Amino acid sequence: MRNFAGTPGTVTALILRLLQCLFAAASIASMASTKSFFSFTSFSYLIASMGLQVIWSFGLAFLDACALAKKKVLHNPGLLSLFVVGDWVISMLSLAAASSSAGITVLYFNDLGSCGFVECQKYQLAVALAFMSWITIGISSLIMLSTLAAAVS
Amino acid sequence: MRNFAGTPGTVTALILRLLQCLFAAASIASMASTKSFFSFTSFSYLIASMGLQVIWSFGLAFLDACALAKKKVLHNPGLLSLFVVGDWVISMLSLAAASSSAGITVLYFNDLGSCGFVECQKYQLAVALAFMSWITIGISSLIMLSTLAAAVS
Repeated sequence: MRNFAGTPGTVTALILRLLQCLFAAASIASMASTKSFFSFTSFSYLIASMGLQVIWSFGLAFLDACALAKKKVLHNPGLLSLFVVGDWVISMLSLAAASSSAGITVLYFNDLGSCGFVECQKYQLAVALAFMSWITIGISSLIMLSTLAAAVS
Repeated sequence: MRNFAGTPGTVTALILRLLQCLFAAASIASMASTKSFFSFTSFSYLIASMGLQVIWSFGLAFLDACALAKKKVLHNPGLLSLFVVGDWVISMLSLAAASSSAGITVLYFNDLGSCGFVECQKYQLAVALAFMSWITIGISSLIMLSTLAAAVS
């Protein structure tokens, strides 16, 4: 079986997971530092979804770090299937949360034009970071899927 | 190779594609019948994305119908890869469009409470139909992926 970059237990996988954590945590920080996020359902959902992503990615980063320390590559099909399904579910939730928040941000900033400058910049930053975290988890899940395909065949 | 339900060129695949067309077209109709959808970026994006989905799903439904008429099942890996990638891209766009519109609908209906009754019901209907069309294209793309995996192995 090929041990390509990004397979669980490699440095690339660890870096991708840490980036996901970083972007998601930064998105939460940016959103939570605004004064009125709790009055928007979508923004609260963004925080919940990014929180879930931080937990998931941190767990997998920890697993990658352990596998790296023991110089062992994870290729158990059962475990990989779990990771693939988890990654897809989390990435769908992240995309939905980022999109719904982006919809509201565009509405306030562009369509209505009624948005406090600093607040709106924080919202936009949070949404941009959420999309970055979605892109990194998307890359991870595609690599996971190809690893699973290689492991099963 | 197994010829399971939902593989391109079967009745299930044709029904799924027609359902996608139907839901997406109904979503466009519901949204376009409101008076002020064009002043919301997200709602315009929903219409564009659903339009793309109608074109894509109708094309594939036509292909399925042709394959059914000729009693031929499509298992060409190159063609299947194209369908898988197309399905995933379209489903991501649909999910993003449905979520951003849902964010705005929830904002107006729930958070602000300032929404004309009939207009808001039409928005909600359009969003619900967009999610239904996303679910059906999600099922199609999962079936496509497993067909591709079976065709390659």
